Amino acid sequence: MKNDTITLRSDDFAKWYTDVVRASHLTDYSSVKGCTIFEPNGYALWEKMQSVLDDMFKRTGHQNVYMPVFIPENLLKKEGELISGFAPECAWITQGGNEELEERFAFRPTSETLFSDYFSKTVKTYRDLPKLYNQWCNVVRWEKETRPFLRSREFLWQEGHTVHSNQSEAEAETHRMLDVYKEFFENYLAIPVITGKKTEKEKFAGAEYTLTVEALMQNGVSLQSATSHYFGQKFSKVYDIKFVNKDNQFDYCYQTSWGSTTRMIGALIMVHSDDRGLVLPPKIAPKQVVIIPIKNDEKLVSISEHIKDSLQEKGFSTYIDYSDKSAGFKFAEAEVNGIPLRIEVGPRDLDNNEVTIVRRDNLEKQVIKLNDVINVVTQQLDKMQSDMFNKALNNLKERTYEATSLDEVKDIMNNKPGFVNAHWCGNEECELKMKEIKGTKSRCIIETKDYEHEKCIVCNKKAKHKVVWGIQY
Amino acid sequence: MKNDTITLRSDDFAKWYTDVVRASHLTDYSSVKGCTIFEPNGYALWEKMQSVLDDMFKRTGHQNVYMPVFIPENLLKKEGELISGFAPECAWITQGGNEELEERFAFRPTSETLFSDYFSKTVKTYRDLPKLYNQWCNVVRWEKETRPFLRSREFLWQEGHTVHSNQSEAEAETHRMLDVYKEFFENYLAIPVITGKKTEKEKFAGAEYTLTVEALMQNGVSLQSATSHYFGQKFSKVYDIKFVNKDNQFDYCYQTSWGSTTRMIGALIMVHSDDRGLVLPPKIAPKQVVIIPIKNDEKLVSISEHIKDSLQEKGFSTYIDYSDKSAGFKFAEAEVNGIPLRIEVGPRDLDNNEVTIVRRDNLEKQVIKLNDVINVVTQQLDKMQSDMFNKALNNLKERTYEATSLDEVKDIMNNKPGFVNAHWCGNEECELKMKEIKGTKSRCIIETKDYEHEKCIVCNKKAKHKVVWGIQY
Repeated sequence: MKNDTITLRSDDFAKWYTDVVRASHLTDYSSVKGCTIFEPNGYALWEKMQSVLDDMFKRTGHQNVYMPVFIPENLLKKEGELISGFAPECAWITQGGNEELEERFAFRPTSETLFSDYFSKTVKTYRDLPKLYNQWCNVVRWEKETRPFLRSREFLWQEGHTVHSNQSEAEAETHRMLDVYKEFFENYLAIPVITGKKTEKEKFAGAEYTLTVEALMQNGVSLQSATSHYFGQKFSKVYDIKFVNKDNQFDYCYQTSWGSTTRMIGALIMVHSDDRGLVLPPKIAPKQVVIIPIKNDEKLVSISEHIKDSLQEKGFSTYIDYSDKSAGFKFAEAEVNGIPLRIEVGPRDLDNNEVTIVRRDNLEKQVIKLNDVINVVTQQLDKMQSDMFNKALNNLKERTYEATSLDEVKDIMNNKPGFVNAHWCGNEECELKMKEIKGTKSRCIIETKDYEHEKCIVCNKKAKHKVVWGIQY
Repeated sequence: MKNDTITLRSDDFAKWYTDVVRASHLTDYSSVKGCTIFEPNGYALWEKMQSVLDDMFKRTGHQNVYMPVFIPENLLKKEGELISGFAPECAWITQGGNEELEERFAFRPTSETLFSDYFSKTVKTYRDLPKLYNQWCNVVRWEKETRPFLRSREFLWQEGHTVHSNQSEAEAETHRMLDVYKEFFENYLAIPVITGKKTEKEKFAGAEYTLTVEALMQNGVSLQSATSHYFGQKFSKVYDIKFVNKDNQFDYCYQTSWGSTTRMIGALIMVHSDDRGLVLPPKIAPKQVVIIPIKNDEKLVSISEHIKDSLQEKGFSTYIDYSDKSAGFKFAEAEVNGIPLRIEVGPRDLDNNEVTIVRRDNLEKQVIKLNDVINVVTQQLDKMQSDMFNKALNNLKERTYEATSLDEVKDIMNNKPGFVNAHWCGNEECELKMKEIKGTKSRCIIETKDYEHEKCIVCNKKAKHKVVWGIQY
């Protein structure tokens, strides 16, 4: 049953997206322009993501901290590239109580400055290193155009900030956290990703280099989904993060930062969902199983309760829909909300000691024996997780191209867009030329030497890199 | 061993407090005036509190959501009492990117306005009710004088916001959440509290009434520690939160809010800690047991690892201090950081298959057999939790007084301050008169009829209430 409140993907993908986030009660628009409300379903999804990621961060030795939300302008201005990157999108606090502030404060757009300032005061010797910190918080970037989860003036994220006594350890950290993100995307969100280094133009303001996790939406558009930055000693020299090394000499720290945001919810939707609403991979779904008694009948209710208890005992997040709506309405609601498995408990099935189980991703129905419920649920949730990953992987493979000319790129991006691998000379002008094709941008540089005898597909000059290109979300 | 960086409580309680928060690495001062940094130890404590409270909120049927951080001035101004209560301490965002905003935004000081605005759009019929929401977030109040955890310009908190179809359900919610806080304070923080209704002067701006949880610090000063507000239909009439009731008539919702903040960390410190540093109740300590091998010796390390594994298996948060510091230094560090139990693994004890176990609260040492470790740790952590509660309860009892004259109150507050129960006429003037005694304020109204033939201890007129008074932190 198609959901009447949701536009078809084939009609208008962008409209479909906003219809899905609204219909599944992930967010609502607020009275504050450019800011969205996280409704219970949306926040529960974020909490689940947080809990998985936070655990991964802690297992890799990181500790959570919390820095102030305000950044005095003067502190922000210390690092030239950072301020020129972020100043145009800062929100400024200029009044506190009834008084004008002497110096205006930026609402943090990111916290390199405050972490650097803190490290400069607390790191004294190599024994204090490394410091492996992370914080979960809200940030603000004053975007002109906004879309729920994908681009909004306030969003929620985590930002990791670390300082190290040497370059190799800091670079290893930058790569380790990229791997953590990749694992999270692939194993939990069921989203296959490509990873690599950003070009100079696309890297984070102030970073030596930026590593990125790039995902492909089902319509072939690319989404930068998480990033990990290596700063070298750039910030530590500006913010004076010095330490005494083992040779009793002063040295500057080597620094990294890495972040992921509520935008991941947007990726999840655009990779997996369908015309009926949300489709969530079981490992990240806040509620994995819904049980729907077809009628409000004592026997059905008692069996439903029994099934719920045994599933919850096995660790499956399960609930029974007892609302006074029709069974059909409950089915549709479970579908639009993306509950991975639905168990229908009806009188006729029960006569045979059976229930019906329906998978959200492929809508397959199975009639199973009551005493098979736990086994089948376990198997089907596992299967659904890998099927969803494989489906997304197939889309990514189908939409990954090699191109040797601008015309080819145009052709691809106008027909069935995706990731296009192509050689590039390293000049920004050629990147801008690519951007004219429906906003195609370099996603990341491919680690390969095969560019060595090749030419830039834009200017035909000697290639410096092979790059993955894609339409920027 | 007294910690050299910590002032004695008997010398200067306020200085002792800030010394403890710094020495135990809970917070550091930031370059942003009035805002503190939550260092790993401080944030871990907050995370632990969050996880316990969040679980209690969810078990009582609440869902987490997230509202924007910005409140347009115009929306904030709708409810007159609220704005007059909060406007003097709002921080204002007046610029976004390079542009002046047409309307300035307050950084949320509390979110009744945005929740009300959201409820007004989403609540249509009694079937939509109740809505039981909570959010964890940062808030800003532009305080002039600040102290870590107790009063700071930005702080972290949770704010619950609920709407109901009738008064009795909303009032029951207001009381239920007070009980949740009380349980949290008593069972987890080991802090005995008194609860009751605030006077008109002390209630939340815009509330019909405010219920409060009040704790007594070890020096006899009172701390308002969590509050639960009943709004009746006050906000719902201003923000137009209407619904169709069962009789098919329009009615306005009944509303509540309730909140607790990082100030609870301040209460924890001032109730339990000592001249050596932090003392944490086991149930809220992020790390419950530290194992300290006296030397870096293979056998000691292997036994330590074994103890750690078996304690962790039983669910006790345990770590081994492997740093290259002296054993004495490690003991002192575990003490200042408030690790509830320390296990010393030394060669001489091991010869007898023994280890030494030291409780942080009373510093009692026990030499125990290796195969008793799990039993003793389990018992001692339990015992420590209840001992800490009882010690605080004794202090509270010892410092709870009945007074029948202002002179008595003066005498008490100047000698051994605490909670003073005394009759009051209900007039604000008399409250202000009490305030002259070292900032004594009404904490809450006692639910009793025994005021009926009594007189106000300030003005001698007919009493309207019996009230608990205390020096305001």
